Amino acid sequence: MTPEKFTLAILASGRGSNLQAIIDGIEKNSLQAEIGLVISDVKNAFALERAHNHGIECLFLDPKTFPDRKSYEQALVKHIQSKSINLICLAGFMRILGKHFIETFSNQIINIHPSLLPAFPGLNVQKRALEHGARFTGCTVHYVNEEVDSGPIILQAMVPILDDDDESSLSERILEQEHIIYPEAIRLIAEGKLTLSGRRVLHCK
Amino acid sequence: MTPEKFTLAILASGRGSNLQAIIDGIEKNSLQAEIGLVISDVKNAFALERAHNHGIECLFLDPKTFPDRKSYEQALVKHIQSKSINLICLAGFMRILGKHFIETFSNQIINIHPSLLPAFPGLNVQKRALEHGARFTGCTVHYVNEEVDSGPIILQAMVPILDDDDESSLSERILEQEHIIYPEAIRLIAEGKLTLSGRRVLHCK
Repeated sequence: MTPEKFTLAILASGRGSNLQAIIDGIEKNSLQAEIGLVISDVKNAFALERAHNHGIECLFLDPKTFPDRKSYEQALVKHIQSKSINLICLAGFMRILGKHFIETFSNQIINIHPSLLPAFPGLNVQKRALEHGARFTGCTVHYVNEEVDSGPIILQAMVPILDDDDESSLSERILEQEHIIYPEAIRLIAEGKLTLSGRRVLHCK
Repeated sequence: MTPEKFTLAILASGRGSNLQAIIDGIEKNSLQAEIGLVISDVKNAFALERAHNHGIECLFLDPKTFPDRKSYEQALVKHIQSKSINLICLAGFMRILGKHFIETFSNQIINIHPSLLPAFPGLNVQKRALEHGARFTGCTVHYVNEEVDSGPIILQAMVPILDDDDESSLSERILEQEHIIYPEAIRLIAEGKLTLSGRRVLHCK
């Protein structure tokens, strides 16, 4: 009997470049996992097309067809629970998830954020880092809890800010690092390599 | 006629390891500057002894002999203005400086802080970075304005946080970087290499 693969659900709202990095990691066999489902809250999200192109089940779940956030999240939960999902990866998913969703999948949701958290949580991150005059920024993979961009940090990567950087050049260099650490963080979780001590995520050797 | 040297006042409350790094930079000639005055608000601060050992004028200015913060800062201003000081470097100076002092020496005060600001301003910085589970931290040289640890950033250096770090090991590795970037930041200012754009500090080639 083949052991069941570690199965991911990916939630995305945009072009899904992190989704692509995860697909690439799986196809190159550096990540022993499979993607069971990709869900988007945006109809034309390119993430859905990527999933479709790689034969991955995908779903546009339209928030406008639900009366409120809670019922939308209940539908998300239902679709995810209909598969055997081990880990939910937010990849440019532009909705803040509520208590019900987060408690249902406690410690099973991760996100990637384009800064070295706790610096620059929230939106317009690269622009704010530039305007602040920070000399270093980066990206962070973290567990999702009820506070935005505040859960325990799994991996970070560092990106220097150059004097001639603009939002676009900086975002591009951060993305390169995101595409490295997001699949790597999933691999660490899939292989059971992480333990939590307080809010420190320790990496087993 | 020899041009006058770029002259520093250093304010310190503790052992003065950053003061030592500045002294070393000057003595090795990598920093074309001189220290005109070292002031401490702590009687037995080792920083005073270091200054004394290197023939640098030093002064213990006892806050207890002044009725309030304002009069203490007026005395600081008076002592600094009695010399031809180009730049005031806070080096582990554990007092928050008020509006009068900061406006008197506008854009002429810099500080070093043991984190990658804006992450972890304030006190107990290394402990908080560890407990937060950050994977990277570092240190920041910044101009001092009226908000604590919030002025424009001149230089930063990055330090990875290791799983087996404690406050002491992490502080030590951050200090190594402080001792590199603090003299370097002073050199950039002394050589007129910095310009301010908004709150971004741009480095001339």
